[in-house]
Amino acid sequence: MQKLDRTLKNSLHQVQAKGRLRRERFGDLVYHRLADDSRPLTRGTIIFEDGTLIPGYPQIGRVMRLDKGLKEQFTGAFWAEEKVDGYNVRVFLLGERLLGVTRGGFLCPFTVDRLPDLIDRRIFSEHPELILCAEIAGPENPYLVGSPPFIHEDIQLFVFDGQRKGELDYLSQAEKRQLIEHYRLPSVQNFGRFQADDLSAIKQLMIKLNNEGREGLVFKEDIPGGKQSKYVTSEASLSDIEAMTRYLQDLPPEYFIGRILRLVMFLDEEGIGHTRELKTRLGAAFVEGVFKAIEQCQREHRVYHRFRCRLRNRANGKQLLAHLGRGDGHLQIVEHRLEQEGEFYVLEFDKVFQRTTGLLGELLSGGVVYD
Amino acid sequence: MQKLDRTLKNSLHQVQAKGRLRRERFGDLVYHRLADDSRPLTRGTIIFEDGTLIPGYPQIGRVMRLDKGLKEQFTGAFWAEEKVDGYNVRVFLLGERLLGVTRGGFLCPFTVDRLPDLIDRRIFSEHPELILCAEIAGPENPYLVGSPPFIHEDIQLFVFDGQRKGELDYLSQAEKRQLIEHYRLPSVQNFGRFQADDLSAIKQLMIKLNNEGREGLVFKEDIPGGKQSKYVTSEASLSDIEAMTRYLQDLPPEYFIGRILRLVMFLDEEGIGHTRELKTRLGAAFVEGVFKAIEQCQREHRVYHRFRCRLRNRANGKQLLAHLGRGDGHLQIVEHRLEQEGEFYVLEFDKVFQRTTGLLGELLSGGVVYD
Repeated sequence: MQKLDRTLKNSLHQVQAKGRLRRERFGDLVYHRLADDSRPLTRGTIIFEDGTLIPGYPQIGRVMRLDKGLKEQFTGAFWAEEKVDGYNVRVFLLGERLLGVTRGGFLCPFTVDRLPDLIDRRIFSEHPELILCAEIAGPENPYLVGSPPFIHEDIQLFVFDGQRKGELDYLSQAEKRQLIEHYRLPSVQNFGRFQADDLSAIKQLMIKLNNEGREGLVFKEDIPGGKQSKYVTSEASLSDIEAMTRYLQDLPPEYFIGRILRLVMFLDEEGIGHTRELKTRLGAAFVEGVFKAIEQCQREHRVYHRFRCRLRNRANGKQLLAHLGRGDGHLQIVEHRLEQEGEFYVLEFDKVFQRTTGLLGELLSGGVVYD
Repeated sequence: MQKLDRTLKNSLHQVQAKGRLRRERFGDLVYHRLADDSRPLTRGTIIFEDGTLIPGYPQIGRVMRLDKGLKEQFTGAFWAEEKVDGYNVRVFLLGERLLGVTRGGFLCPFTVDRLPDLIDRRIFSEHPELILCAEIAGPENPYLVGSPPFIHEDIQLFVFDGQRKGELDYLSQAEKRQLIEHYRLPSVQNFGRFQADDLSAIKQLMIKLNNEGREGLVFKEDIPGGKQSKYVTSEASLSDIEAMTRYLQDLPPEYFIGRILRLVMFLDEEGIGHTRELKTRLGAAFVEGVFKAIEQCQREHRVYHRFRCRLRNRANGKQLLAHLGRGDGHLQIVEHRLEQEGEFYVLEFDKVFQRTTGLLGELLSGGVVYD
């Protein structure tokens, strides 16, 4: 059993006693997953049978106003790192196996399959106690509709934090930078150290990121247990709305309302103001998204998104489908093809948005709603 | 005790036994209100101490597709009546008093005050058993932000149904028309009798209503217990969004998402398609609404709407404020002025949207959200 600090050991006993750990399998591997926050442990924490504990990655508070927000959240200096729009993974070694676990605490067959392509394994042989926290993004990922515009194919991995197994604290910036440089790890951009007073520099940086279609920044205090806050561009909010309106009924309505609010707060603070072009794009996102859903529903009797991703190993593709199929009851996963193409197996599958399909199907065939 | 048919009497005993009736006061008048549907009685049904029962007005199912919807909902002929965007009241005589009750089952001090201006009381003296169902709309109403564009000041009343006390069925079109004509009652427009096959005529009518900024149509089978369905214009959905985005956080997010869906379904069926102007208006509704809320919150530290209405009697104004103040816990009512102007008392009050105020206040002062 791995060495855990005392607080962590107590917390672990508590969640075990309360029956809040769910038993999971990944091939022949058994582990337990924490499905909800239970301070200081966070949702997505996993524990293996040998006692290895991988802490969940904590939620980061969102500021929607840089002027007051940075002053309110940070008294001293903080680092500004790029926020990349992908899915969050923690990468680590278990015995000889290099594994990747998603935010929710699921070992991911796709991530595990592709890790050797994404990161130099040597770092883990030399630092077996290390956990790397990273974002995986790109047009060929099996989780997210849409991709950062600067990734044109497949996926990329971006390290943004590191920690040691059995500890809740993260590596300092110095330790993290040293590892990133030494092992040439792909990582998120670090834009340097700022203070809340450097407002105009940070706002200029945000405008640049916005123009490049990037998601935003994470601000990080460089002390143990340091604060973190995130702030996103209007482009990020808009592209989320553009990507997801087709599946209107399968997302919580707060998804859209929250992004409209962020979008306008960003425009207001950055003084970008009421451009006609932006209004047209926002309106078009909604109108065209729903139009496309109606068309697809009429033509194919279901509203779906076709995902495509590349794997090294065919069995991992099958395991991924089984994993995705376990998800939300209102999403259906339908395999389209899984075929070798050059050095990869290409997997294409459809995620059928059953609530949107159901509602549109009902309405288009003349049903009524009571709202 | 008024004569009630047997089913109604049984239903009434059941809801009484289950304790589902809430005791209410209106001045010296005591009555009971049904807060939720309890078949065949609907939410908003009220019963007075003398046994007079005023049935709730039932919810009307919404079709979002005329082509299939009318065929699906109606086998025979139906009437098409204009749907006016106001608040729903039932008007009736209790002893000598002319009263008006809202959809939710509250006797309304404003409505009761203004009824003599809105309707010829003679109909009730000659038909004391009558209940008239009507919409009250206009820029000076105390409930709704926004008004139909064709009402330029104060309020107007539009009768759309009638029934007899103690009965659940509504008057036939012939009986209703006869009363409307005889007493020159203000009423919603009746566009005539249609069949599901008259699709192109109905679609043309909808385009005309849409161009005039009218809300839509209610389709009604003219038989006892006949079906009703409603269908609204894209203009109605858009103007709701325009009116309410400022109070984004105080409405259920489904309010906006549902209207986006209706809007696009309407455009799609009417073949109005992807006009740039409409997209800009939809985007502008969201962007400008949130901008205005931010401005108001920064300037006045609260997000509110100022309502204005006219009353004949000062005491009714005070009673209205007390009534509104009882509402949702997250809305605050602040009297601005209540002063005589010519033949009316003009009441102005602010409805403070506390959730929007709270969230924007928190965010603008640098707070974080976890979403």
